[in-house]
Amino acid sequence: MNALLERIDNKTAIIGIFGLGYVGIPLGVSVTKAGFSVVGFDVVHQRVEQLNNGVSPIKHISDSDIVQMSNSGFEATTDFSRVSECDALIICVPTPLNKTREPDLGIVATAMDSILPFMREGQLLSLESTTWPGTTRQVLLPYIEKAGFSVGENYYLVYSPEREDPGNQNYTTETIPKVIGGHTNECLTVGSALYGTFIETVVPVSSTEASELVKLLENIHRSVNIGLVNEMKIVADAMGLDIFEIINAAKTKPFGFTAYYPGPGIGGHCIPVDPFYLTWKAREYGLHTHFIELAGEINASMPGYVVDKTVRALNEVGKSLKGARVLALGIAYKRDIDDMRESPSVYVMELLREWGAEVAYCDPNVPVFPNMRDHKFNLKSVELNPVTIAGFDAVILLTDHSDFDYDLIGKHASVLVDTRGKFEVGSDRVTRA
Amino acid sequence: MNALLERIDNKTAIIGIFGLGYVGIPLGVSVTKAGFSVVGFDVVHQRVEQLNNGVSPIKHISDSDIVQMSNSGFEATTDFSRVSECDALIICVPTPLNKTREPDLGIVATAMDSILPFMREGQLLSLESTTWPGTTRQVLLPYIEKAGFSVGENYYLVYSPEREDPGNQNYTTETIPKVIGGHTNECLTVGSALYGTFIETVVPVSSTEASELVKLLENIHRSVNIGLVNEMKIVADAMGLDIFEIINAAKTKPFGFTAYYPGPGIGGHCIPVDPFYLTWKAREYGLHTHFIELAGEINASMPGYVVDKTVRALNEVGKSLKGARVLALGIAYKRDIDDMRESPSVYVMELLREWGAEVAYCDPNVPVFPNMRDHKFNLKSVELNPVTIAGFDAVILLTDHSDFDYDLIGKHASVLVDTRGKFEVGSDRVTRA
Repeated sequence: MNALLERIDNKTAIIGIFGLGYVGIPLGVSVTKAGFSVVGFDVVHQRVEQLNNGVSPIKHISDSDIVQMSNSGFEATTDFSRVSECDALIICVPTPLNKTREPDLGIVATAMDSILPFMREGQLLSLESTTWPGTTRQVLLPYIEKAGFSVGENYYLVYSPEREDPGNQNYTTETIPKVIGGHTNECLTVGSALYGTFIETVVPVSSTEASELVKLLENIHRSVNIGLVNEMKIVADAMGLDIFEIINAAKTKPFGFTAYYPGPGIGGHCIPVDPFYLTWKAREYGLHTHFIELAGEINASMPGYVVDKTVRALNEVGKSLKGARVLALGIAYKRDIDDMRESPSVYVMELLREWGAEVAYCDPNVPVFPNMRDHKFNLKSVELNPVTIAGFDAVILLTDHSDFDYDLIGKHASVLVDTRGKFEVGSDRVTRA
Repeated sequence: MNALLERIDNKTAIIGIFGLGYVGIPLGVSVTKAGFSVVGFDVVHQRVEQLNNGVSPIKHISDSDIVQMSNSGFEATTDFSRVSECDALIICVPTPLNKTREPDLGIVATAMDSILPFMREGQLLSLESTTWPGTTRQVLLPYIEKAGFSVGENYYLVYSPEREDPGNQNYTTETIPKVIGGHTNECLTVGSALYGTFIETVVPVSSTEASELVKLLENIHRSVNIGLVNEMKIVADAMGLDIFEIINAAKTKPFGFTAYYPGPGIGGHCIPVDPFYLTWKAREYGLHTHFIELAGEINASMPGYVVDKTVRALNEVGKSLKGARVLALGIAYKRDIDDMRESPSVYVMELLREWGAEVAYCDPNVPVFPNMRDHKFNLKSVELNPVTIAGFDAVILLTDHSDFDYDLIGKHASVLVDTRGKFEVGSDRVTRA
């Protein structure tokens, strides 16, 4: 343990990062900046080459960040035998849901299967992927035991959830406090020492299970608050009131209220997915997580609500959605990013297509509709100008990117369905959805 | 209108306040401080005399505040004929629920019935009581029309919800921004002018309905967030985790998370009541307010959860709750106040009594158990010392007043049930509930 602490302290420790995506890459940037050498592991050859060639796969991280990271000692590889070089192994792979909304730890298991043959004494293993309480102990610990090591004595195991917020201008990996739970006190000491070298504030908790639940609570809180305000949107709309006006007035209360805004649903890899990890685990204890399930239900119904509003708005001008030309504005899952994962815009586009609409989209951050596992559109982003905008029977604002010219859109759209409260209601042409 | 605006501007307007309680009294203090004369109306003779004798009925307002208010031109009365003296009428009466959890506007109606014969041209009528969207238009407007006035021309009508937070050390009536909606633009102008003389920031919205929904959204947000964390408490507890540790770690996230804490239920006149005003009104539109109903259900189940935990804790030491001597610590609905309205502690005490326990309580702010409409205990607050504490089979911390000596309690209680996370878990004697 002292040898490892010393290598952490003098920055000679080599850090392995598994999964080079929205979490692993910013982490690599921070760790190399602190002076460590990093071996980045991924199973996708293309991703590894891209990074080693100094190209960023993520909008909010620049190519020069990648080049600088490489110059500071980062190297990407698909060769898991290099695990034995590493002093610390940090797992940042995705933890999705399967089709029946149950946790799918397959990618974690695959990573651990690849790591297992090359584990060596004295390593620190840290899981950052969001998961159900008990994963570190029940899923990761057995690998270490299988490899013949004794956790807390000659191997160290922690759980420290990632808190990345892509596109957040105010916080970076280094300035977001990091929660960490150790399998033993020794594990916590080693883990805190490592994270403390590149993160301003490390927040220790009493167990890996506690740190696992912390992350879930954060995302459950968001999911439920967005679900609540989406339900309130429906009620306000029925009463002829504008939910955005209501929220903006409510948030003038200087305590006891936090503004959340409605939208066409929730997207990204975290909020629509993570809460159900707790739902699944709670069943083992005979418990139901009613708020999570209700939020999931209401948030998932939002794309249908938006399409229903579009049908009504077109109906007002004597048109059916079938055969209508409809423009989806913004298809990334939130403002000013290019991430399409679980984007509600895609669900809206699919519903529009099902109804028989001719669907187009515009997103300055997504010039071509990407290959997605479950969604297929052979489309390129439409250029916005007075003629293209006016050429659509309906325009639906889904993701409120800063780059959109809202004046232009508002002036030329014949039917405008607004899920983001960017356009003044009162005009016949504007429908809130 | 100009005459009224002038009297507001030069502070010669006389302000009538209806309902001299947790809202009306602080409002009277602020209005007189701004230089207006105030006539305070209440139907309870005792309350009127108390105030005119310089005695405060509220813990967080001192007798000297009341004396100063009287010296600055406040007078309390039960004589509604004095309505005709007033330039503005501000309604601050309670809006409770009836036994089947429907809005009960009976007290507003009674106040308006008493006001009606004495209404005169040129008055401003403002409702501050929390209520369903549409109340001002559907309930108050008809009174003005019945009196023969024309709103916006020779009578002015606004809704401006109270945002009092008893015991809040950081904000007062004057510094909490005030939302206001007018029946017409002229109404909004007059109402904003009046509130602007004694409140730092007035927040105008587009209608009385919008301002009505703003207040409901604020309290729905709290009710749902407390409900969520109460459900999370149950899940965490089943997993052997301490929800207070989880919340305190989660709140180190500097964005996207706001800490709410679990407890024995929710109390006070607002959070358990107000949300159901929207539930009731939404039914008129064929809508259900699922989050409100779920939060209500979970929050209302908390006293039963606390008693269940107490039964289990006593069971561990071989005792039944029947016949046990149980001390309830804190019976006001929240910390450092004396307000008992809807206090969950009282529900806990009633359940304990139903189970056959011998119930006592200690609350430094409530020396004698008050007369309540639906609850009766013939008890006085017990003094806390090593002998009294040790004399109870179980001590349940319900309201975490600052005045409690937690060291003393922790040292001498044999079975300690803690709903507020004040005592370290790990000791056999401490049970979180």
